[in-house]
Amino acid sequence: MTGNRVVVYKGPGEVAVEAVDYPKLELPEDVVNGLGLKKKAPHAAILKLVTTNICGSDQHMVRGRTTAPVGQSLGHEITGEVVEVGEDVLFVKEGDICSVPFNIACGRCRMCNEGKTGVCLNVNPARAGAAYGYVDMGGWIGGQAEYVMVPFADFNLLKFPDRDQALEKILDLTMLSDIFPTGYHGAYTAGTTTGSTVYVAGAGPVGLAAAYSAQVLGASVVIVGDMNAERLAQAKSFGCETVDLSSGNELVDMIEQILGEPEVDAAVDAVGFEARGHGADAAEAPATVLNDIMSISRAGASLGIPGLYVTGDPGGIDENAKVGQIGVRLGLGWAKSHSFTTGQCPVKRYNRQLMNLILADKAHIAKAVNAARIGLDDAPAAYREFDKGAAKKYVIDPHNMVA
Amino acid sequence: MTGNRVVVYKGPGEVAVEAVDYPKLELPEDVVNGLGLKKKAPHAAILKLVTTNICGSDQHMVRGRTTAPVGQSLGHEITGEVVEVGEDVLFVKEGDICSVPFNIACGRCRMCNEGKTGVCLNVNPARAGAAYGYVDMGGWIGGQAEYVMVPFADFNLLKFPDRDQALEKILDLTMLSDIFPTGYHGAYTAGTTTGSTVYVAGAGPVGLAAAYSAQVLGASVVIVGDMNAERLAQAKSFGCETVDLSSGNELVDMIEQILGEPEVDAAVDAVGFEARGHGADAAEAPATVLNDIMSISRAGASLGIPGLYVTGDPGGIDENAKVGQIGVRLGLGWAKSHSFTTGQCPVKRYNRQLMNLILADKAHIAKAVNAARIGLDDAPAAYREFDKGAAKKYVIDPHNMVA
Amino acid sequence: MTGNRVVVYKGPGEVAVEAVDYPKLELPEDVVNGLGLKKKAPHAAILKLVTTNICGSDQHMVRGRTTAPVGQSLGHEITGEVVEVGEDVLFVKEGDICSVPFNIACGRCRMCNEGKTGVCLNVNPARAGAAYGYVDMGGWIGGQAEYVMVPFADFNLLKFPDRDQALEKILDLTMLSDIFPTGYHGAYTAGTTTGSTVYVAGAGPVGLAAAYSAQVLGASVVIVGDMNAERLAQAKSFGCETVDLSSGNELVDMIEQILGEPEVDAAVDAVGFEARGHGADAAEAPATVLNDIMSISRAGASLGIPGLYVTGDPGGIDENAKVGQIGVRLGLGWAKSHSFTTGQCPVKRYNRQLMNLILADKAHIAKAVNAARIGLDDAPAAYREFDKGAAKKYVIDPHNMVA
Amino acid sequence: MTGNRVVVYKGPGEVAVEAVDYPKLELPEDVVNGLGLKKKAPHAAILKLVTTNICGSDQHMVRGRTTAPVGQSLGHEITGEVVEVGEDVLFVKEGDICSVPFNIACGRCRMCNEGKTGVCLNVNPARAGAAYGYVDMGGWIGGQAEYVMVPFADFNLLKFPDRDQALEKILDLTMLSDIFPTGYHGAYTAGTTTGSTVYVAGAGPVGLAAAYSAQVLGASVVIVGDMNAERLAQAKSFGCETVDLSSGNELVDMIEQILGEPEVDAAVDAVGFEARGHGADAAEAPATVLNDIMSISRAGASLGIPGLYVTGDPGGIDENAKVGQIGVRLGLGWAKSHSFTTGQCPVKRYNRQLMNLILADKAHIAKAVNAARIGLDDAPAAYREFDKGAAKKYVIDPHNMVA
Repeated sequence: MTGNRVVVYKGPGEVAVEAVDYPKLELPEDVVNGLGLKKKAPHAAILKLVTTNICGSDQHMVRGRTTAPVGQSLGHEITGEVVEVGEDVLFVKEGDICSVPFNIACGRCRMCNEGKTGVCLNVNPARAGAAYGYVDMGGWIGGQAEYVMVPFADFNLLKFPDRDQALEKILDLTMLSDIFPTGYHGAYTAGTTTGSTVYVAGAGPVGLAAAYSAQVLGASVVIVGDMNAERLAQAKSFGCETVDLSSGNELVDMIEQILGEPEVDAAVDAVGFEARGHGADAAEAPATVLNDIMSISRAGASLGIPGLYVTGDPGGIDENAKVGQIGVRLGLGWAKSHSFTTGQCPVKRYNRQLMNLILADKAHIAKAVNAARIGLDDAPAAYREFDKGAAKKYVIDPHNMVA
Repeated sequence: MTGNRVVVYKGPGEVAVEAVDYPKLELPEDVVNGLGLKKKAPHAAILKLVTTNICGSDQHMVRGRTTAPVGQSLGHEITGEVVEVGEDVLFVKEGDICSVPFNIACGRCRMCNEGKTGVCLNVNPARAGAAYGYVDMGGWIGGQAEYVMVPFADFNLLKFPDRDQALEKILDLTMLSDIFPTGYHGAYTAGTTTGSTVYVAGAGPVGLAAAYSAQVLGASVVIVGDMNAERLAQAKSFGCETVDLSSGNELVDMIEQILGEPEVDAAVDAVGFEARGHGADAAEAPATVLNDIMSISRAGASLGIPGLYVTGDPGGIDENAKVGQIGVRLGLGWAKSHSFTTGQCPVKRYNRQLMNLILADKAHIAKAVNAARIGLDDAPAAYREFDKGAAKKYVIDPHNMVA
Repeated sequence: MTGNRVVVYKGPGEVAVEAVDYPKLELPEDVVNGLGLKKKAPHAAILKLVTTNICGSDQHMVRGRTTAPVGQSLGHEITGEVVEVGEDVLFVKEGDICSVPFNIACGRCRMCNEGKTGVCLNVNPARAGAAYGYVDMGGWIGGQAEYVMVPFADFNLLKFPDRDQALEKILDLTMLSDIFPTGYHGAYTAGTTTGSTVYVAGAGPVGLAAAYSAQVLGASVVIVGDMNAERLAQAKSFGCETVDLSSGNELVDMIEQILGEPEVDAAVDAVGFEARGHGADAAEAPATVLNDIMSISRAGASLGIPGLYVTGDPGGIDENAKVGQIGVRLGLGWAKSHSFTTGQCPVKRYNRQLMNLILADKAHIAKAVNAARIGLDDAPAAYREFDKGAAKKYVIDPHNMVA
Repeated sequence: MTGNRVVVYKGPGEVAVEAVDYPKLELPEDVVNGLGLKKKAPHAAILKLVTTNICGSDQHMVRGRTTAPVGQSLGHEITGEVVEVGEDVLFVKEGDICSVPFNIACGRCRMCNEGKTGVCLNVNPARAGAAYGYVDMGGWIGGQAEYVMVPFADFNLLKFPDRDQALEKILDLTMLSDIFPTGYHGAYTAGTTTGSTVYVAGAGPVGLAAAYSAQVLGASVVIVGDMNAERLAQAKSFGCETVDLSSGNELVDMIEQILGEPEVDAAVDAVGFEARGHGADAAEAPATVLNDIMSISRAGASLGIPGLYVTGDPGGIDENAKVGQIGVRLGLGWAKSHSFTTGQCPVKRYNRQLMNLILADKAHIAKAVNAARIGLDDAPAAYREFDKGAAKKYVIDPHNMVA
C-alpha cells in the first residue's frame, strides 16, 4: 500500500503539500460520530487523481476569510481513475476514469431524491451539504492529492465512456467537477435561454464558465464585468462583451452602450461576499454585486447567484458582515419582481449533459477558462498567482497523466 | 352623466371620501404623456363598483410610509358591473360582473405575453407595473369609489359566468382582485404542494389568504405567526396552527414543538418592510421576517415574498432603510440553497382558477379572512380600525349591492 | 430460518398460495446474468410483509392477457417491517415499517438521477424498469407473500416515522406502494391544479385514487366514468360526480349536463388496453378510452395515462392489438394541441408527500378505494371477486398485523 | 385605394394568383357570424407584404388531402410593413416591419392568457385556433398576397426594432412567422437541451428548422432522417448527421452506427400524417414516423410532434385514416414512459427570442433551410417544385423589397 500527499492550508496566504495516509474505504470520523453512520464504507471507491483543480472558493479559506483551521486539507475539483471499489459498488470499476461532483451526496435521502445534491442530509453533521477538503463541510479529506476516497461511488461518480477519449479531452472534462456545472447553474437559474442578453459579474473561472454556459444556452449577447484587465481579455477571447468596473463609468451606461438598452434579460453573480465597490480603488462592499445585478436586470428577471455568501466571515468589513448579514437593496428587486437562486450548484444535475457536449466536441471550456496544467508541488505557487488575479484555471496533474 | 366619489389620502392617518369626475374612456395624463399613448381608450370600460376592499398595502400610504402625495386616490381591489365599454371591447358587455386584477396590464407587451402582468411595460412611465389608486403606479384613479375606469378591459377583466351566482358569492369573489391570488402566489412560489409543511409570517389578510391557499395547495400543516392575538385566532378558525411572536419564545422552538422538527418545507413572508423584531415591545426591524423564514426553512426551500418591500421609505428606521436597503442574512439562505420570489402577484395567473374553486363551493376565503361589509362612507373609520389590527377584511359596498 | 409463502399464477383465472424459499440478500438470476451485476446484495433488505395489495394490473396476468408463465409469483404493492439489512444499508433499520415503491430502482443510474424510477436501467435486462412479481419485469419474486427481498433498500424504502402511528393508519399507508401515487401521477400529469375540472375514465382502484388525488390537487369538479354501478357509487361516496358509460348516453352530453360545458380541463385514462366500447354490451375496443379523453378535453389540455398499454397481448382483439398497436384518433388530439404522459408512475416522486398528507390526517385514501383486509389464504377468492368487479381494494395481511 | 392579389387553390395540384379586394379593418364573416363579434376591427392593421413563404402544410391542401374548397386563398407565413392601423392599435405604427405569427390569436381569452395562442378561442367558430389562408381555420384571407389584414395587431405583430437591419436580414427573419418557431417547438417539446442526442424525422423545411433549433438548444448530435437525397444533403450542410430511410437499412441500426447506442435522448416528428413506410418504394403509412420515434427514443423521453395530423383526410389510405385514426404502437411508448406533445406551435412563445438571436447574428436559419426568393407570380411554379421535393424554402417577395 502506497502513501498519499495532499495540499494543506497552513495559515493565511500559505499552503503546503503534505504526506497523509493512503485513503481507506471508511467514512470520516465527523460523519460517523455526528450522524451515527457505519464507519465501513462498502459503497466507496478510491480514486487515483488524474486532475484536480484549484478553485476560487479555496481562496476564501486560504485568505483567512473563513473559519478553516490550519491543517485543513484542500481540493474538491476531482477527476480520477478508480483503483479500488467497495463491495457494494456495482457500476463503476477499476480503471474507469470518472468525474467527481464537488458536492458529496448519499443518493438516498430526500434532498438527493429531489436532485438537490448540494444539500444532502447524510454527509455532514453540521448542516445540509458537504464537499471534499472544505471547512464546515463534513471533514472529508481534500482531493488536491494523489489519491482520494469517494463515498457512495455509484451515485457520485460520472464515468467517462472511453478512457483514451477521456485522457485526450481531460482539460475540458476536469471542469465537470465544479466550475462548468457551477457556471452553467448560474446562467441557467438566471433564466438564460435562446436569445437572452446576459450579464455575468466576475471574470474569474466561475464567471468565465457562466459566460461560456450562457453561450451554450443560446444567449444572443453575453457581457462580463470585472476590474481585472487580463481576465476581461480572457472573456473577450471567446466572444463575450466586457465592461471594466474600474473605469469609473456607470455599469448601467456601459450596458446601454453595448445593448442599446440599459437592461439585460438575465444576470449572474459570480463574485460573492468578497465583492468590492466600483472604481479602481473601491473598498470591499459585500452586497455590491447583488445590488448591481438587480439594478441592471429587466423586470421579471431571475438572478443566478453561484457566488458564495457565508454565514460567518472573520474578515468581514463590519459586525454584520461577520455573521453574513449584508445590506441588500431588496426593495429594488421586489419592485422588479425579481427572483433569486442561491447556493451550491448540484453538480449531478448538469455534469452528464455537459460531458456529452464536450465529448461531441461542442464545448471548449478549458480554453474559455484558460486551463493551465501544473504538478502537485506547483500548487503553492499557483495559489499565490491565482490570488494575484492570474487569468488562469490551475489544473493539478499529480501523476503526470495529462499529455 | 352621474358624478363619482372616491376615497382619498389626506395626510398621515387620514382618509376622506371626496367627489371626483365620473370616469371617461381615456388614459390618465401620466401615461399619455410619459409613454406617448393615445388618450382615447376604445379598449377601456367603466365599472360600477360592486365591492372594493381596503388592503394592507393601502395602509403603507396612509401611515405616511411612502411618497404618496396628499390627494392620492385609493383603492385597487375592485369588483364591478360593466356599465360602459369602448369600441374595441369585444368580450365583456354591459351588465357583466367582473373581477379586476389590481395590477393594470396592457396584454400586448413582452411581460404580459409571459404572464408577468405585475410588471407590464405600457402602463406606467415611472417603472414596470401599475395599479389603481397607488403612488408611483401610473396615476390611475383609485377604485374605492362608486365608478372606475378599467383600461384594456378584455384583457384585465375576469367575467363571472352568472350574475346571480356572482352576487350570492360576492364576499368570496371580491377577494380575487388581490389578496386571494396574492396569498396563493406567496404559497405557490414558496413551493407549497401536496403534503408540505408551511410557515406563513403575518396574519393580516394577505397572510390569512396565503395560509388558506397553502391548504388549497394540499399542505399537511400550515403554521401562521403574528403578534396579534385576534388575528392568530382568525388563523386558527380555519385549521391553521399558530405561533405567537410576542411570546418571547424562539420561533424555531415553537415550530419544532408543532412539527417535531425545527424546519418547514415552505415559507411565506406576508409582512414586508414594516416588520418588527420579536417580542411584545420589539421595534421595527425591516429584515426580521426575511431572516426568520430563512432560519426555519428546510435546505433547498423556496421562499415566497408577497410582502411589500419598497425602494423608498420616508419613515425608514435608518438611512439605508429609507432607500430600501436592509440587512439580509443572505449567507444563511445561500448555505441552504434557498431561492426567493419577490414582487407583486400577477393576479391573472391565478384568478380564473381560484374563481372556479369558489364557484364550485370549494373555497371559502371570505370566512378565512373575516370579510366585513361596509359602506363607502364607512371607509375612514375602517381604515382606522384596520390600522389598529382588527382581524377583519373590510369590503366596501358603495351601491348597497351586497346582500 | 423460516420459510415463505407467495401467491402464484397457475393459469388463466387461477392463482394459489405456494411455499417458496425464504428470501436471501441476493439479486435474481435474470438480473445477475442479464446485466452482469454481483449476485451478493449488501444494499438489500428483507421485509416481513405488513400489508400487500392486489392490483388491477395483476389481473391482466391472471386473465391470461400477458405472456406471464404459469408459476409467476405475484404482488408488487408491498408494505413491510424490515427484518434484515445488508452491510451497505445505512438509513433503514430492523423494526422500521416501510412502504416499497412497486417500481424497483437502483438509485444510481441516469434515469434514477432524473427521478424516472419507473424506467431504471439497472434492474431488468429485458427493458428499462422493473417490478416485483410481474412478467417481463426482471424476475423479482412477488410480494403477495410473507417475506420479500427489497434491493437498494436505502433508496427504495420509504420509512414511516413512527411505528405505532404507521400501524394505526396502515390501510391508508398501504396505498403508497402503488395506487395512491399512480392515481396522483395520472391526475398530476393531466395538469390538474387548483380549480380544474377533471374526468377520470375508470372507477377501479386506480381510477378512484386518481379521482381522490384530483381532489387533493384542488380540482373544482371531478367526474368519474365507468359501467360498474357499484364502483360508480364508490366514487360518489367521496364527492365525485359520475357518468355511467353503459347508459347509452353520449359521454360528451353527460359531461355537459354536469359542467354546463362539454369539456374538462384535465383527463385521466385509468383503464388501459382492456378498454371496452360504450354501452352495456360493448365489446373490447382498446383505444376507446384514449379517444374518449381526447374528445372531451379542452384544447391545450394534458392527458394523464396511467392505465397500462402493453407491447404484446396474446388475447388482443386483432393482429394489431396483439402487438400493442391500436387505432388512436391522433388527429383529434393534434387539432387540440393535446399532450400525453404515459408509463408507470415513478412512485418515489410522490410517495413521501402523500405519506405526509396521510400522517397529518388530511388524506383518507383507504376509504376512497374501499380497502378490504384479508388473509394471505384469502387471496385466490379475492382475485375472483375483484375480477368480477367488486368495488373493493383487497389488502392482504399475511401476519395478522392489521388491527 | 389600391387592389390586392393573392395565391388561390384551384383544385388538386393547381394554384393561381388572383385579384381580390384590398383588405379592410374588418373581421371575416365566418368569425363575425359564428362568434358574434363586432365586424369593425379597430384592433387590426393592414400590412404590405415584405415576404411570405410557401409552407409544407399548404401542400396538404394543394395535394387535395384536406377539405379545402377551390378558391381557398393561401399563405400564413407573413412578414410585412404596417401601412394602416385601427384606432386601438397603440404599439405598432405605420412603417414598422413586423413578423406575423401564423396562428391568429385574440390575446384576450383564457388560452392566449396561458400562452397557448395556437388554440385561441375567439378567432374560429369551427374549433380552437385559426390561421391565415387555411381550410377550417376561420376564413381569414391568405397572406401569399400583396396586402393582408392582421387582427389584434398589437398582440399578434412582432416588430423588428430597426427597419434597415430588418430588411438586411429579411431572409432569416421571414422564418419567424412559422417554421423557425415550429421547428424550435418540436425540438423544445422533445426535451432537447444541452448535450442531447436528437433525431428529427423529415428533412423538409420544418424538419431542417427543427434540426437547426436542436443545435441552438445545445444538442450534442442531431440526426435527420428522410428519403430525399437532396434534402439530406441540405441537413448535412449545417452539421447534422443523416440517415437515408430509402436505403433498406433499419433505422435503429443507422442510429446505433452514428451514436454507438441505438437510442436518442429526444425525437421530433416533422412529417405528420402523409408519412410513408421505409424503403424506396414504401407506400403511405400514416403512423410510421410516430412508431419510429418511439422505437428509437430512450426510456423517459419526450417526443415533439409538430408534424400535422388531421381530423379528416379525404385521401387517407383507409376508412380509419380518413377520419384521422391511425395505428399507433402506444404500448411501446407506454413501456418506455414516453410523453408526447402535439399541435400547432404557439409562435408567440418563441418568436421574440429567435428574432433576438437572428439580430445578434447568432442564427442563420435561411441558409439552413435554403431560402429561395421568388416573385408573387412565381408562386405556382414554386408550389410544383416544392411538391417534387426541392430542398428549398420558397420566399415570395411580392413588392420586390428583398435585396
